[in-house]
Amino acid sequence: MDDDMENGAGTYQERPRTFPAVRSKSHTPWIFQMLTRINARVLFVLLMLIFVVVFYIGASASPIIVFVFTICIISLFFSVFLTKWVLAKDEGPPEMSQISDAIRDGAEGFFRTQYGTISKMAFILAIVILTIYLFRASTPQQEAAGLGRSTSAYITVASFLLGALCSGIAGYVGMWVSVRANVRVSSAARRSAREALQIAVRAGGFSAIVVVGMAVFGVAILYATFYVWLGVDTPGSMKVTDLPLLLVGYGFGASFVALFAQLGGGIYTKAADVGADLVGKVEQGIPEDDPRNPAVIADLVGDNVGDCAARGADLFESIAAEIISAMILGGTMAQRCKIDDPSGFILFPLVVHSFDLVVSSVGILSIRGTRDPGLTAPIEDPMKILQKGYSVTIVLAVLTFGVSTRWLLYTEQAPSAWLNFALCGLVGIMTAYAFVWITKYYTDYKHEPVRTLALSSATGHGTNIIAGVSLGLESTALPVLVISVAIISAYWLGHTSGLVDDSGNPTGGLFGTAVATMGMLSTAAYVLTMDMFGPIADNAGGIVEMSQQPESVREITDVLDAVGNTTKATTKGFAIGSAALASFLLFSAYMDEVASFAHVPFKQVDIAVPEVFIGGLLGSMLIFLFSAWACSAVGRTAQEVVNEVRRQFIERPGIMDYKEKPDYGRCVAIVASASLKEMIKPGALAIISPMVIGFLFRILGYFTSQPLLGAKVVASMLMFATVAGILMALFLNTAGGAWDNAKKYIETGALGGKGSDCHKAAVTGDTVGDPFKDTAGPSLHVLIKCSRLSHWLWRLYFCDRLTFHLHLTMYTGTHILLLYS
Amino acid sequence: MDDDMENGAGTYQERPRTFPAVRSKSHTPWIFQMLTRINARVLFVLLMLIFVVVFYIGASASPIIVFVFTICIISLFFSVFLTKWVLAKDEGPPEMSQISDAIRDGAEGFFRTQYGTISKMAFILAIVILTIYLFRASTPQQEAAGLGRSTSAYITVASFLLGALCSGIAGYVGMWVSVRANVRVSSAARRSAREALQIAVRAGGFSAIVVVGMAVFGVAILYATFYVWLGVDTPGSMKVTDLPLLLVGYGFGASFVALFAQLGGGIYTKAADVGADLVGKVEQGIPEDDPRNPAVIADLVGDNVGDCAARGADLFESIAAEIISAMILGGTMAQRCKIDDPSGFILFPLVVHSFDLVVSSVGILSIRGTRDPGLTAPIEDPMKILQKGYSVTIVLAVLTFGVSTRWLLYTEQAPSAWLNFALCGLVGIMTAYAFVWITKYYTDYKHEPVRTLALSSATGHGTNIIAGVSLGLESTALPVLVISVAIISAYWLGHTSGLVDDSGNPTGGLFGTAVATMGMLSTAAYVLTMDMFGPIADNAGGIVEMSQQPESVREITDVLDAVGNTTKATTKGFAIGSAALASFLLFSAYMDEVASFAHVPFKQVDIAVPEVFIGGLLGSMLIFLFSAWACSAVGRTAQEVVNEVRRQFIERPGIMDYKEKPDYGRCVAIVASASLKEMIKPGALAIISPMVIGFLFRILGYFTSQPLLGAKVVASMLMFATVAGILMALFLNTAGGAWDNAKKYIETGALGGKGSDCHKAAVTGDTVGDPFKDTAGPSLHVLIKCSRLSHWLWRLYFCDRLTFHLHLTMYTGTHILLLYS
Repeated sequence: MDDDMENGAGTYQERPRTFPAVRSKSHTPWIFQMLTRINARVLFVLLMLIFVVVFYIGASASPIIVFVFTICIISLFFSVFLTKWVLAKDEGPPEMSQISDAIRDGAEGFFRTQYGTISKMAFILAIVILTIYLFRASTPQQEAAGLGRSTSAYITVASFLLGALCSGIAGYVGMWVSVRANVRVSSAARRSAREALQIAVRAGGFSAIVVVGMAVFGVAILYATFYVWLGVDTPGSMKVTDLPLLLVGYGFGASFVALFAQLGGGIYTKAADVGADLVGKVEQGIPEDDPRNPAVIADLVGDNVGDCAARGADLFESIAAEIISAMILGGTMAQRCKIDDPSGFILFPLVVHSFDLVVSSVGILSIRGTRDPGLTAPIEDPMKILQKGYSVTIVLAVLTFGVSTRWLLYTEQAPSAWLNFALCGLVGIMTAYAFVWITKYYTDYKHEPVRTLALSSATGHGTNIIAGVSLGLESTALPVLVISVAIISAYWLGHTSGLVDDSGNPTGGLFGTAVATMGMLSTAAYVLTMDMFGPIADNAGGIVEMSQQPESVREITDVLDAVGNTTKATTKGFAIGSAALASFLLFSAYMDEVASFAHVPFKQVDIAVPEVFIGGLLGSMLIFLFSAWACSAVGRTAQEVVNEVRRQFIERPGIMDYKEKPDYGRCVAIVASASLKEMIKPGALAIISPMVIGFLFRILGYFTSQPLLGAKVVASMLMFATVAGILMALFLNTAGGAWDNAKKYIETGALGGKGSDCHKAAVTGDTVGDPFKDTAGPSLHVLIKCSRLSHWLWRLYFCDRLTFHLHLTMYTGTHILLLYS
Repeated sequence: MDDDMENGAGTYQERPRTFPAVRSKSHTPWIFQMLTRINARVLFVLLMLIFVVVFYIGASASPIIVFVFTICIISLFFSVFLTKWVLAKDEGPPEMSQISDAIRDGAEGFFRTQYGTISKMAFILAIVILTIYLFRASTPQQEAAGLGRSTSAYITVASFLLGALCSGIAGYVGMWVSVRANVRVSSAARRSAREALQIAVRAGGFSAIVVVGMAVFGVAILYATFYVWLGVDTPGSMKVTDLPLLLVGYGFGASFVALFAQLGGGIYTKAADVGADLVGKVEQGIPEDDPRNPAVIADLVGDNVGDCAARGADLFESIAAEIISAMILGGTMAQRCKIDDPSGFILFPLVVHSFDLVVSSVGILSIRGTRDPGLTAPIEDPMKILQKGYSVTIVLAVLTFGVSTRWLLYTEQAPSAWLNFALCGLVGIMTAYAFVWITKYYTDYKHEPVRTLALSSATGHGTNIIAGVSLGLESTALPVLVISVAIISAYWLGHTSGLVDDSGNPTGGLFGTAVATMGMLSTAAYVLTMDMFGPIADNAGGIVEMSQQPESVREITDVLDAVGNTTKATTKGFAIGSAALASFLLFSAYMDEVASFAHVPFKQVDIAVPEVFIGGLLGSMLIFLFSAWACSAVGRTAQEVVNEVRRQFIERPGIMDYKEKPDYGRCVAIVASASLKEMIKPGALAIISPMVIGFLFRILGYFTSQPLLGAKVVASMLMFATVAGILMALFLNTAGGAWDNAKKYIETGALGGKGSDCHKAAVTGDTVGDPFKDTAGPSLHVLIKCSRLSHWLWRLYFCDRLTFHLHLTMYTGTHILLLYS
């Protein structure tokens, strides 16, 4: 995938045009190749036909679905417009586009290998799920609906695979646009800062719209198809309130892919980054992204596969999982309160996210490039521009959220309930805003914390690390307080909404927190845009440096890069916040499910029971162990990179004088294979440990006659792991972001500037922060949700008597064998 | 306190005898001065008289108490023997004893100031407790016992103050012996490694025996006094099973002092250490403990006040709290099972710890100095010698534990119960052994993890930190698994012991875990000896370096120092393990107590209730915040030290050529005042936050009619905080110990040895690890127990209707005032 980079040897000179004029071709998946070969008109007619079918199915299910479909399709056209706009920009001089080609090749190569591995694992898991589902007892609801055991098995597995596929596509789209936008941003940076910013934002906006739109569209299509296929709400078949339960597989598929995408991508990007920095910046004293560093292309590739592709998969998963769990809760509540038309409560999340697409598009378009004063004028603060766009989005989101609640959540049983839920949404939106603000406070070098951190670098490497760790640990306090207030107030707003069950008990509490979560995610597409902006700006900076542009151009990309660090950190804060807010929903959904399968009430997780407490202890420990493995994977891979780079510097002494060309391809290949190998261990820990612990405690519960012990232990494990995971992820992300920006702050000339001892200490901090913020932190965030969803599937495993006895027999059998052999 | 050190200016030369021949006098508290002035015979007669009275009271309470008293007094004589033995050793040449004097003065000065502050805070808290107790309702038990409200208030406050005083004395004794033993160890190191080891062990043994003996003696005297005074078990007065509840104040007093002793001492020692290393080792390239470094005396003082004094107070508190909670549980169980003579169950912990004194003394004596081959022979591995002593202690402890269970826990209702409890004890002892082994594995440079860590230093500061963090995070896994197995097996051993309540339900489960905790702590005195050994060896090394002894002497103290690092880490592991094992006891004791005060059953802590879950989230967050504040306190204070040292190097340019004497005293004073200031914020967080959170949720519970909501939220906060605290403390301690020993490993000559780039990276790791392992980690360990005990006191606050309404009135009053002003 990088042979072409070798051809340039010999043409390498002092301040040279680094690469030969031969450009490599982008690899296009065969499905796109086929599509492009078909005549455009035929394609258009085909597309229209598909739309008609989809709309027909949607209309049979509910008019709300038609509304959702319409918005999704408009967004699709909007995203096409954004791509065309971005791709229409020039790719700059050949030396830029050649670098960009190398990055693209590396990213596409890694993506193919990584997703090859992931898809193999997904297929194995699909077979395991199929087996479990085929051998388990059906639920009473399924029996009532006449849904056979095998039908529900195939439905679950099919949605699992669809979820996995869509998550993969979301990742691919994120990477596809970023490897094309990076060079266009660096080219634009030669002309104006504002234009560069606009291109990066619109490219990020494209993938954000596609990711969110696909999540909404996928769930809506599955819902409508199942509705029509299973004849829902006709006598003798399934009730509409139970329908969302069939979608769980979709969320789990998305989670599964996102976990490995994030782990593999995260290890890749940071191993390359740390390795490149250690030899380049620290040992050889050459600048970041210097073309003489053999690991520099691997580093730039990492931004695309780690940040763009993985974050795309991650956010896709977040939104899909959150939509599905809110739909389940809405259905359960509507059933309990005997609401006449429950479809409003069930489809509410889809409508909220449809409006999300609309308001975020407006926000993206509000960032315009016309008033740009040119290169010589002082650069406007890009953070302010992005935040102005965010404010526009938030104001519109508040309005549309109110409209959605009035439209869908108005019911005659409780006429003012919609108002309470609208307030819940407001709580969520305010939480999102608070999270963005808090993370910005702790990671932006305009504020006290990062300045103090930079100052502590003046006394050496050690004090810099101590200060960064304390900053990260401290930064967990405010978000936790915000989340606590949000959960409790949303719960009580829902509780007092007036919705009551048969016996008059208020039932809206949990749905209130669900609505708050939706409120928080109601600007998700815009936040994702800001996030995608980061790695694109980072890459653009790299290309500018490598193609040796003048200092003024580099200054523009540097500013964009620093802002990107902050927006990346805020998005992570936002994602953790939404995971925390959603956590409580998923627990109760899990408990409802277990109760329904086991035919035993399951209302409490009492940590005063020793086994349940132990479950919590183990759950928290898993978070620590997972973080350890993720970080050490980066450390090990980075050491391989360091050794390779050192070898190249020794074997090709001409590299330092621009006389020999470094072998970029080898570094890319080393990082790719190492990170794929390293992602397996932590990933397996996340998937397998809940199963093992649940199984062991199930056996213990069996012998000590404590019913549901396995399920209770797993529930407590889940809750403790979520709490520990939220705190650990906040710590890792904020500390990493702060270290990075403390370095950036010093590079602006403060405290001695580049090359000073203070700067060296700050670089050490940045190196430590890299795996924290881009590998362990984001993976933890996926882990929290993934393990929750995997529990959801394994619930069958803990509750189904048949499989349990099967396993018990196997277990005792092995035991006896061991004893007598 | 250090004017005397100034006199030497002018006599300072190349390889000089650093200090003038004038020695300072040790500061002796007036109470000791008075005692030494009294005639020895009068003193002896007085002592005998006191013993007779004590024995008389003891005999009136129980023959078991007489046994406990006898062993405590024998141990007292044994500890006097150890001191005499240590003090009889020579103090070496004048240049050694002068340095030692300076260290002693600094330590005593800081101790006086620190404990002055702590005692003021303790008095304020005592008044607060008194007020709360005077205004609360009495418990049914107290009413039945005819114990007036004011009597119980005075009893609680008196035991609180006694506990605080004893904890202070424990700290003082630890420091007293270490500042005297350090110079004797360095002097002996000139002669033989084995003799140096023996002196350090016996000095450590002295304070260990005093600390454990005093904890046992204090609780036993309080018990016997209350027994006789309140006429327990006579008709119309208190039952003996309720007596242990009166002792809680003692434990809380000990915790309170230990928290601030550990925080203040921990900040002191590490700020001085980090500050000295940063300027000395990293900037100026002079060796550790070089006399030219102005912060070196402060560093050596820190070892004494941070490690010796604070650890003494900490272990005193651990043992006192664990004895009291096990006594409460024993009493509750004996009452439920209607055991005829409950005193065996109640006094069991005191007997276990009496045997602990005996077996640990044997262990200490088993380390002998006779077979020493002299300087030229290869140094025997001191770790092996210490571990042989530990094995002796453990074997004896297993035997005596069996004897104690048969003697005290045999009951006719369940004839085989004692055997189950003996097995619980064995579980505890095995847990202790496993913890010591695991910590050794992760922190000793003989094993894989530290070697890998050292290797990662070869690629720079950044990879060293990443590898250390991952190592620390990973090291939480095995201890958690061990603790999980231990809690569950001890619980089930106790559960199936045959002890049942009136309705035939097994009740021994919790007591089983209590017995396992006692088993774990049944070698506490020996483990504490190993711990105290560390800082004494460290100090001895410092004195050897400062007095510029030959390399061979330094080698001996270096080996002892490295072993000290490992033993310090293992003790911390051991202390965390016992805290984890004990945690479950204290929860249930807390819940029993709340139920008894509130007259409402309180059996469950259901984290499926949103507020209770939020409590857990907040509790875990507090651990993160507390660690952050502890670490940043060290960072800030270290920066002050760095600036002072840099100032001295600039203002006195002769220091580097040994021509001018550095101003050691100023560094000591700066660190002392800064660490006292910095200990307040995290300390207050630990004490106040549970109150605030409990109060807020109590109000919420009041308005949402959820009874006991405050108490439940606090319980969940407690449990989550314990889990997070255990993990965080394990992470911080192990990472810190591993970094320190990775540096030590490189200093033995591996990977380039001293002065190489690899060594510099390892020094950075060591610097980061310092506040982790010696400030935040140990403070967390105290925090876990302290907040638990403080909840225990505040329980009154959450349950007492009177005070609650008082506060509610105040609250609404303020609210109205604010509204209309």
